Amino acid sequence: MKDGRAMERALELARKGEGLTRPNPPVGAVLVRGGEEIAAGYHRRAGGPHAEAACLASAPRLTPAQWSQSTLYVTLEPCSTEGRTPPCTRAILEHGVGRVVVGTEDPNPSHAGEGLRELRAGGVDVECGVLRDEAEALIAPFAKWIVSGRPRVTLKLAMTADGRIADRDGRSRWISGPEARTCVQALRRRADAIMVGSGTVAHDDPSLLPRPAEGREPYRVILDADGRLHPGARVFQDEASARTLVFTPEGAPRGELPVEPIEVPETNGGCDPGAVLDTLGERGLLHVLCEGGGEIAAALAGAQLVDEYIFFMAPRILGGDARPAFAPMGLGLADARALKYEEICRVGEDLMIRAAKGHGDNRREWPQTGTEFTEEGGRKEAQNKGGRHVHGNH
Amino acid sequence: MKDGRAMERALELARKGEGLTRPNPPVGAVLVRGGEEIAAGYHRRAGGPHAEAACLASAPRLTPAQWSQSTLYVTLEPCSTEGRTPPCTRAILEHGVGRVVVGTEDPNPSHAGEGLRELRAGGVDVECGVLRDEAEALIAPFAKWIVSGRPRVTLKLAMTADGRIADRDGRSRWISGPEARTCVQALRRRADAIMVGSGTVAHDDPSLLPRPAEGREPYRVILDADGRLHPGARVFQDEASARTLVFTPEGAPRGELPVEPIEVPETNGGCDPGAVLDTLGERGLLHVLCEGGGEIAAALAGAQLVDEYIFFMAPRILGGDARPAFAPMGLGLADARALKYEEICRVGEDLMIRAAKGHGDNRREWPQTGTEFTEEGGRKEAQNKGGRHVHGNH
Repeated sequence: MKDGRAMERALELARKGEGLTRPNPPVGAVLVRGGEEIAAGYHRRAGGPHAEAACLASAPRLTPAQWSQSTLYVTLEPCSTEGRTPPCTRAILEHGVGRVVVGTEDPNPSHAGEGLRELRAGGVDVECGVLRDEAEALIAPFAKWIVSGRPRVTLKLAMTADGRIADRDGRSRWISGPEARTCVQALRRRADAIMVGSGTVAHDDPSLLPRPAEGREPYRVILDADGRLHPGARVFQDEASARTLVFTPEGAPRGELPVEPIEVPETNGGCDPGAVLDTLGERGLLHVLCEGGGEIAAALAGAQLVDEYIFFMAPRILGGDARPAFAPMGLGLADARALKYEEICRVGEDLMIRAAKGHGDNRREWPQTGTEFTEEGGRKEAQNKGGRHVHGNH
Repeated sequence: MKDGRAMERALELARKGEGLTRPNPPVGAVLVRGGEEIAAGYHRRAGGPHAEAACLASAPRLTPAQWSQSTLYVTLEPCSTEGRTPPCTRAILEHGVGRVVVGTEDPNPSHAGEGLRELRAGGVDVECGVLRDEAEALIAPFAKWIVSGRPRVTLKLAMTADGRIADRDGRSRWISGPEARTCVQALRRRADAIMVGSGTVAHDDPSLLPRPAEGREPYRVILDADGRLHPGARVFQDEASARTLVFTPEGAPRGELPVEPIEVPETNGGCDPGAVLDTLGERGLLHVLCEGGGEIAAALAGAQLVDEYIFFMAPRILGGDARPAFAPMGLGLADARALKYEEICRVGEDLMIRAAKGHGDNRREWPQTGTEFTEEGGRKEAQNKGGRHVHGNH
């Protein structure tokens, strides 16, 4: 079993813990000897055994010589500190594992590299960075939270090809197809909280819970700027209502609700989105999936608080009088919020477009005043190279 | 040289004629003997030799036996009628070509199949349908025009990820990147006319001509609902101004223009788009590239007159107060105009999304009232299968 394949397998295991481990990251581990996987484990919940411990505990009885011929693959640097569970470095050293292959370092600045150093000091052959990109993507929510105190924000919108999330009368159901809706369930399962505006709750009365839940218990987070919430809404009445959080701007009107709203400063007439994220981070939530509507989408994107955009784009045109995916943002062309496209695929009839926050300066090769470029010009060096095509599979 | 490869080569040759041959379709031909290409030709302009004639005329001297061992590959069924040039079937039979391989039949209902029958009656071994999809795509403008009298309509829009073609102040330059703008030049070269609204001319004063032109001489077509055009606009002043057409609704105000506007019936306050297309078709224009703005885009899409949508989607968000790609269309969700995504690729930082007009009933699996489906439900049979991924090439 090659390093890459074994780490692949450890990543697969780790993903089973996505959405379950807050405030810990999902981690997976595989023990390999003589080219064969002989044990495996992953982190299933905070307070439970870490992936390395679970993997080592499930290993068959080995002689010290056999342990020294074994390699432990773990997606994240093993912890070296006493927490709710003993340090994983100690368990690895006590077992006498000969080699440890790690996906990526601990993103916690005060721990990073410490586990690797301890293992090396104990005589273990240590390698780090195998499938690093995948390993980093897996713990992106934890990495952001441990550094900033705020959860990662994924903004998911189902919209038409012309950027409309509902028609002019507010009808939005079935803009995207069944395959896209199935994808949304998977997105909900990896999130610690599903966030929407009170308008969405008032209009659609959604459950927002993943179906099937597969053990996930995400929070529902409702931002209510103007007391539009009704106590009879499903999010207050169903079996998960204890995990429904309502935020309101300080001093805003509020309805008679079954839960006490959490007050945050007001920004642009709504809840300050940064303050909401701070509060969710304090509660140990690592990953928030925001599902709109347009007001929250605009507030988050406007404040540069979206880490990941996921658009399900339906093959439909609704026109300029339908509801925009992002409410008015007051932006000029030079201030447009930048994205970076990362993945595009077909999902049934729809497209799924995933993008990260764009980096740095928003302007691309903005022409200088006085150059000869015109709308029609194009530049000599501008070649259509490297376009990667996805042809229809019809 | 296998049939597919030889037809590929004939298609490549034919594409050199795109945008040059109106009102004829582009056609390419290759003569193969003993597995080697020995002659090639394509249709370069109406009135000039057809591809088959050009190819045969450039062939080396062959004996009758050698001719009978040769195969002629031609992207479109050879003509059997006397036009401005003699029928190609006669030339093929006179040369004694042994085998003819054709991409697709003549789309003209009164000629279709006639050329193939004549060749077969003359003892030629005839095969039709090699790379048929590509051959049909190449002549799609001609095929639509010969049947309907109207040109094919490609609507190209450069927009943000949230469907905005300009900011709230109307600034739109450089929404898309240099690679996308280079693509637009290629789109212009395959079109017989570039169409925009008078608002675009008044605001941007564009040239709309392809750069480099590579011999193309497309018409510029301006739809002017309210006399906004200025006689000093570039489209009236440059070297190609003789091919600038202005349409106005009957009875609408008009400016003092260097050209006499063509009056068409009024629809929704603008030029009736179907009447405009009828007029362009009467002039032998096969393919119109419409580049917006939002009013024309909405009029064309609303009237189901767009055959092909090409969106260059910039990695930017502008918000709901910026200019929409499609002006208000008065559509409810059930009336949304349907597309069918056909191709997605990266073009520099942007995405290029190409779609055809959607077919038939606009409703997908619309839920019946009373079913248990909810926004969150998804259907059991809805699996995320077959998604084809394009990962970032960064």
